[in-house]
Amino acid sequence: MKAELLEIIGDDKRVWVDFIDEKYYSDQLGRIKVKPGAVVLPLKTKEVASVVKFANENSIPIIPRGANTGLTGATIPVEGSIIIDLSALNHIEAFDEETLTVTVQPGVPLEEIQAFVETKGYFYPPDPGEKKATIGGNISTNAGGMRAVKYGVTRDYVRSLEVVLASGKIVEVGAETIKNSSGLDLKNLIIGSEGTLGIVTKAKLKVLPKPAYTMSALAPFETLEEGIDTVLEILRANVDVTAIEFLEKEAIALSEKYLGLVFPTHKGNAYLLFTFDGESMENIRAYSDKVKDICRTYGALDFINLEDEEALQRTWQIRGAIVSAVESTSEQEPIDIVVPIHRSAEFVKYTKQVSQKYDIAVQSFGHAGDGNVHLCIIRGDLEEEEWKNRLDQILEDLYKKAHELKGLPSGEHGIGQTKRPYYLKYADETQIALMRGIKAVFDPKGILNPQKVY
Amino acid sequence: MKAELLEIIGDDKRVWVDFIDEKYYSDQLGRIKVKPGAVVLPLKTKEVASVVKFANENSIPIIPRGANTGLTGATIPVEGSIIIDLSALNHIEAFDEETLTVTVQPGVPLEEIQAFVETKGYFYPPDPGEKKATIGGNISTNAGGMRAVKYGVTRDYVRSLEVVLASGKIVEVGAETIKNSSGLDLKNLIIGSEGTLGIVTKAKLKVLPKPAYTMSALAPFETLEEGIDTVLEILRANVDVTAIEFLEKEAIALSEKYLGLVFPTHKGNAYLLFTFDGESMENIRAYSDKVKDICRTYGALDFINLEDEEALQRTWQIRGAIVSAVESTSEQEPIDIVVPIHRSAEFVKYTKQVSQKYDIAVQSFGHAGDGNVHLCIIRGDLEEEEWKNRLDQILEDLYKKAHELKGLPSGEHGIGQTKRPYYLKYADETQIALMRGIKAVFDPKGILNPQKVY
Repeated sequence: MKAELLEIIGDDKRVWVDFIDEKYYSDQLGRIKVKPGAVVLPLKTKEVASVVKFANENSIPIIPRGANTGLTGATIPVEGSIIIDLSALNHIEAFDEETLTVTVQPGVPLEEIQAFVETKGYFYPPDPGEKKATIGGNISTNAGGMRAVKYGVTRDYVRSLEVVLASGKIVEVGAETIKNSSGLDLKNLIIGSEGTLGIVTKAKLKVLPKPAYTMSALAPFETLEEGIDTVLEILRANVDVTAIEFLEKEAIALSEKYLGLVFPTHKGNAYLLFTFDGESMENIRAYSDKVKDICRTYGALDFINLEDEEALQRTWQIRGAIVSAVESTSEQEPIDIVVPIHRSAEFVKYTKQVSQKYDIAVQSFGHAGDGNVHLCIIRGDLEEEEWKNRLDQILEDLYKKAHELKGLPSGEHGIGQTKRPYYLKYADETQIALMRGIKAVFDPKGILNPQKVY
Repeated sequence: MKAELLEIIGDDKRVWVDFIDEKYYSDQLGRIKVKPGAVVLPLKTKEVASVVKFANENSIPIIPRGANTGLTGATIPVEGSIIIDLSALNHIEAFDEETLTVTVQPGVPLEEIQAFVETKGYFYPPDPGEKKATIGGNISTNAGGMRAVKYGVTRDYVRSLEVVLASGKIVEVGAETIKNSSGLDLKNLIIGSEGTLGIVTKAKLKVLPKPAYTMSALAPFETLEEGIDTVLEILRANVDVTAIEFLEKEAIALSEKYLGLVFPTHKGNAYLLFTFDGESMENIRAYSDKVKDICRTYGALDFINLEDEEALQRTWQIRGAIVSAVESTSEQEPIDIVVPIHRSAEFVKYTKQVSQKYDIAVQSFGHAGDGNVHLCIIRGDLEEEEWKNRLDQILEDLYKKAHELKGLPSGEHGIGQTKRPYYLKYADETQIALMRGIKAVFDPKGILNPQKVY
């Protein structure tokens, strides 16, 4: 395979066969390590297409990979596979004020897109926590993030995609038009498919005019349940809230210690963190006042408008560092369960029960505005076998509970490899059969990111 | 087949085989008439499933049908087919303030859903012109409508769907959760598939809190091009506009005459009609003032705030009656082309050229805020053969131009039967092959609405 890949790529500094950097053996978590057969670093869509065509003709599995920030093992190779590292396809190709779109290659980090469009007076609303993730990964997992309450998720901002199919053919799904009722929706099928149907090599993304003002506010509650119960009432009040995050005291404490920063309040045991944005600060304050009233009615101990820029940055920094703070003390298993929004409090309460039952620390935080609960299940000082054993039991319990509450194993991270058994356990068999049928249409030999998702 | 259908439905008043009402021979336009083999009127999902299962086992084509308000021949039967008339599956099953959803059967008319949720203080944003269309039809075509500029289209409001597959199995695609990154997106594949992949028998739709205030405003321009050029500038200004419709003097005149009503202005030759909504009238006025400034800068001859309820109703009545007004004078061919928004003016200008070239009247109107241009191509007093001849030529020209401008044959009506040749002419062959492959996975015998769309 070495000779063929060298011929396609034409540059021995972008093809690795004999010596492969160990970073390619695994995903970010690094628990499962498999040596791939080769790694290529294409600079052009055509190179991607040629590598895929070659792999397809020879039934060699392909693993697409970007910044490798995924949390579900979607980029873990299989033996003998070719990893296509898309991180060098990292150009912002066009910004078009006529169609209000930005055209990017898959390897552009999210933070770069956000910063770029903001220099033009626009903004790209999807805002997952991991800003170094590539847009290709965001599209492959239909990433969500903080601002989903008001603005929706990655899916809602993809106008069209250039996709390399298993055959090596290049297609453009979606359109430059805003509306489209012409044929089956292949674009939404590719979004969230985690590299199993094709490889995204270009994306045209919708941007919005940048709101003139944003503001955050923080409400401490005695218990998390009280906080989460408030959320539904806020959503019913039509107060144009951009983000509603929930946080717990313990997680905040870890993050404060990790960063050496102090959270604006230490009242209560749980917090709701709100963001608003809009064209007028007066409106934002009016909405924020309404939210304040609702919070007070539902038992908030305080309501702090974070109008001071420094306090604002500090608060979000602490929110953003929770996972790193946890990981600085121990290995952890990241969970991305989503439940119907009115079940959030019940689910979070259940996580405390399993934490006690198995004597394992569980930190929860996440997107209160859409029922997407992130958990860190913390290994602490458990021995390998005991950790695996308890983790497996706790996961069984959590995914079972999520299913009972009509929830799903992933709200925004995807299923990948590590969540696959839990997903398949509760997914409808008929639908899994349809997904596999669709996979066979796109990828008859099953070379694209095999043994992932469904 | 009569005996089997009678056994499944168990009520001879809901099965027709020997005597079939002629209304079932065609779609709303009534140009192509085909006698189906049978019509059934199910009252339960189970009956739909049993009929489909029987049809599949016997390779009998199935044509699903609601209020038959479609404009693309999607409900025209094929010979010997069974029409499943879903109009008696017309119950609103649940309204849930915990998940902010309404659960409806496919035969509920859109206007009934809108009215129902408004009594609860909520609203269902998608607002296509045809309010008597059923929600099943809206989902099957991914219907758009006026409010798409701010609120998006039907696709954006479907949380989950109950679908009868060709096998007769019943699945629920999508979820009760707000976010979902768990497996391939079968829900979006069903939406807009025009009955070719399955039959929607229930839908859980997202609703929003009803805005406290709405306002409309009207801006006359000397030419339509000037008006449409203004739109992009308005979208860039972040002024939270709900709808931007464009209208031409001639179409208005027809509608005025038809209704015996007078439009609020007769200045200029073209009009932009805006809607705003929100929680504060003050904000709405501030946004409307900004739009007024932009319109003036771009040559508007006036800017009329339609704050008077009577004038407001009258204006929208006249907008709403354009197609009926045209049809009261002549047969017409409805067009639903969508182009990238900055190409709208160019496309509308082109429609004037083809109108002259073929000496056929063309009225254009539509959704200026998203590049979705509706045309009525008007037969006038042309003889049948001449009409068909010229219509075919004009359609060839229009769809060719749309393709050149990176547009699509349908923004919200769907492809159905009548637009299929034009769609297939310019669609990418690889993608059509994927669509047909997907169809074969869902419907191996090809019984579901055959010879439609792709």
